[in-house]
Amino acid sequence: MARIVMKFGGTSMAGIERIRAVAARVKREVEAGNQVAVVVSAMAGETDRLVGFCREASSLYDPREYDVVVSSGEQVTSGLLAIALQAIGVPARSWLGWQLPIHTSDAFSRARIGTIDTAALDESLMRGEVAVIPGFQGVADGDRITTLGRGGSDTSAVAVAAAMKAERCDIYTDVDGVYTTDPRIVPRARKLARVTYEEMLELASVGAKVLQTRSVGLAMKEQVRVQVLSSFTGEDAPMADTLPGTMIVGENELWEEIADVERQLITGIAHDKNEAKITLASVPDKPGAVASIFAPLADAGINVDMIVQNVAHSTGSTDVTFTVPAADLPRSLDVLGQAKATIGYEKLVHDTRVAKISVVGVGMRSHAGVASTMFTTLGERGINIQAITTSEIKVSVLIEEDYTELAVRVLHTAYGLDAEVAA
Amino acid sequence: MARIVMKFGGTSMAGIERIRAVAARVKREVEAGNQVAVVVSAMAGETDRLVGFCREASSLYDPREYDVVVSSGEQVTSGLLAIALQAIGVPARSWLGWQLPIHTSDAFSRARIGTIDTAALDESLMRGEVAVIPGFQGVADGDRITTLGRGGSDTSAVAVAAAMKAERCDIYTDVDGVYTTDPRIVPRARKLARVTYEEMLELASVGAKVLQTRSVGLAMKEQVRVQVLSSFTGEDAPMADTLPGTMIVGENELWEEIADVERQLITGIAHDKNEAKITLASVPDKPGAVASIFAPLADAGINVDMIVQNVAHSTGSTDVTFTVPAADLPRSLDVLGQAKATIGYEKLVHDTRVAKISVVGVGMRSHAGVASTMFTTLGERGINIQAITTSEIKVSVLIEEDYTELAVRVLHTAYGLDAEVAA
Repeated sequence: MARIVMKFGGTSMAGIERIRAVAARVKREVEAGNQVAVVVSAMAGETDRLVGFCREASSLYDPREYDVVVSSGEQVTSGLLAIALQAIGVPARSWLGWQLPIHTSDAFSRARIGTIDTAALDESLMRGEVAVIPGFQGVADGDRITTLGRGGSDTSAVAVAAAMKAERCDIYTDVDGVYTTDPRIVPRARKLARVTYEEMLELASVGAKVLQTRSVGLAMKEQVRVQVLSSFTGEDAPMADTLPGTMIVGENELWEEIADVERQLITGIAHDKNEAKITLASVPDKPGAVASIFAPLADAGINVDMIVQNVAHSTGSTDVTFTVPAADLPRSLDVLGQAKATIGYEKLVHDTRVAKISVVGVGMRSHAGVASTMFTTLGERGINIQAITTSEIKVSVLIEEDYTELAVRVLHTAYGLDAEVAA
Repeated sequence: MARIVMKFGGTSMAGIERIRAVAARVKREVEAGNQVAVVVSAMAGETDRLVGFCREASSLYDPREYDVVVSSGEQVTSGLLAIALQAIGVPARSWLGWQLPIHTSDAFSRARIGTIDTAALDESLMRGEVAVIPGFQGVADGDRITTLGRGGSDTSAVAVAAAMKAERCDIYTDVDGVYTTDPRIVPRARKLARVTYEEMLELASVGAKVLQTRSVGLAMKEQVRVQVLSSFTGEDAPMADTLPGTMIVGENELWEEIADVERQLITGIAHDKNEAKITLASVPDKPGAVASIFAPLADAGINVDMIVQNVAHSTGSTDVTFTVPAADLPRSLDVLGQAKATIGYEKLVHDTRVAKISVVGVGMRSHAGVASTMFTTLGERGINIQAITTSEIKVSVLIEEDYTELAVRVLHTAYGLDAEVAA
């Protein structure tokens, strides 16, 4: 007997027919002898509707009251799933955030989960009941409802799994797992049986939007094994025969079960078109110059990603290039315009037609030549590299946006990630 | 400074524009120096939607989970009204049923309010905050959400008013008060400035559907002064200039402020077309015979209203006529058919084309001739009376349904209730 958490998103909860399909899927896990907690999202579109009401009521809404309003979406689906489970003979009850309770910080509308009391939950599970828990919500300041920010249900699921010491946390989603790259770009992309938390974080943050980044970070911290798998195997047969998805695990477990030779050096290729490049020309090449650029951006809460500082010109000045999220470009230009005198640059140019291409893999720590292969492969296709960053498990380059798909495809092949073609 | 409760129904909460109008109305009471609690319904149609989900999920839904689902409608409007109040500078917070808490019985989906803790509420009101309280909900068994049954928000409002010792409970509704009779039948019906709880109960239970009967009963028990008034003075000017409505008060207060001579003997005329008449012919005229008719109906939970037993025939048998709610007629026929041998009647006839006409007024206790006027007036128009019941403040007759409007009109005139016609 194992304890597992199952998490279903808004698409899986959109209407009673789908909720019934979810109940049937949960029943299979119960009949397999597991103790099961289910974390649910609101019906697809419902949270948007509720957020819309709050914004319409006041652009400066009280986040505590916003949380009262928007948490209701998951309250509804929790009750309905409990009813649907009981209807097929599975004992179940809903546990709202304040009932367990799930304690969070008091940062209303974007709270962070603290501790989860599991005494009542444990008793319920031991009685053979399925616990249905609304995602996205908790309680703070004694009795006030909090929400975790958009997409918080994944985080709720991982937190519940950690608290109840679940063997794994199954996240049912629109995709059937994590791929070596975007299958829409590379049809021969392969589904990964396992990735590490660190790889998942890199893949998620650079565009493979399968799980909320926060939830992966929490899973890593709490060592919760997370499985991503599909809610739907077809329009007409939701979850009738769920295929194995991708298991997100610690590095030890990764190597434990997969022979070293089978594991590719590189796990996947990600791309991200949501960055903008800014270049400040002729910044004085002296101590403190770089700080004078990034301090005001940091003060404005703008997240700077890649940074390249060229060698100094003979004139004693240098060019500095960096990227920011494209959505933050207007504010960034504003901040830098105001700081022009302080920084002392001559000219500012920006470009949103760029893409960041990343090769990710825990294997690269122990292998040389990953970056070299990347640069050579791109160079052969005439793709110019505008900036480079590296981490222990990632090499990212900034290229012209038009080359995104080409770059992903040639790198996917170059690192041996292409699936075998069926004979 | 007074404490008041204001209650708004689903039509008043249907959309942010209307919620804003409610907020403006609440602000006027706050600016008049009052401490205000507002009890709200869900947006019009929302409770039906949520109930529909539960029924679709399972016809035998768990009422505890049903309550989790359907209570969310009022949760949403409470949060939104708190936001709308804050937006116009009125400090406000929502208090969900479990937060106050409002303790109820554990009869989920049809719970009865027990006690309401007011310590936190009092503090909030003393701080100058408007308390926004979702109607229809409470908590039982420690931490489980309950609901009060459809229309329960009126009851919530009265209970909150009693708990916080409010000077009055203003119920904003679709009508602008309680009338002497249905204005659609009698255009010269007058709006009553005051009625007693007892009169309101009789008027409500016989068809003047302004307030939920339960809420009036509770108001009477707790001596809460309830005012019915209109949410809308026009499509485009919701509540801009609310007119005085009808105040529902104890009998002492009724006589206190209205000179005896101004008060009509009869307060109003009600009609009810939802009864069915059943006659059992030739029931043995012996002890226990009547009990053998009504015991099985009572066991089946069927509410018998008017009962007429004729004088015994020379054959030693009698005819018994009574009414039941039309919706219960099929079940009644079923029960009586099974008990035919026990009761020993010869023939059963039934008729749904009947109407109950009631004249109501606390004044009739001290006046003779009310019934006589009624019978004479109806007789003059050739309207046959099929059954009669009386209470201390009411005389009801059963007539053929086709005569309903005529009967109401002639009685309204006969008791001097017609409004003066403007010159």
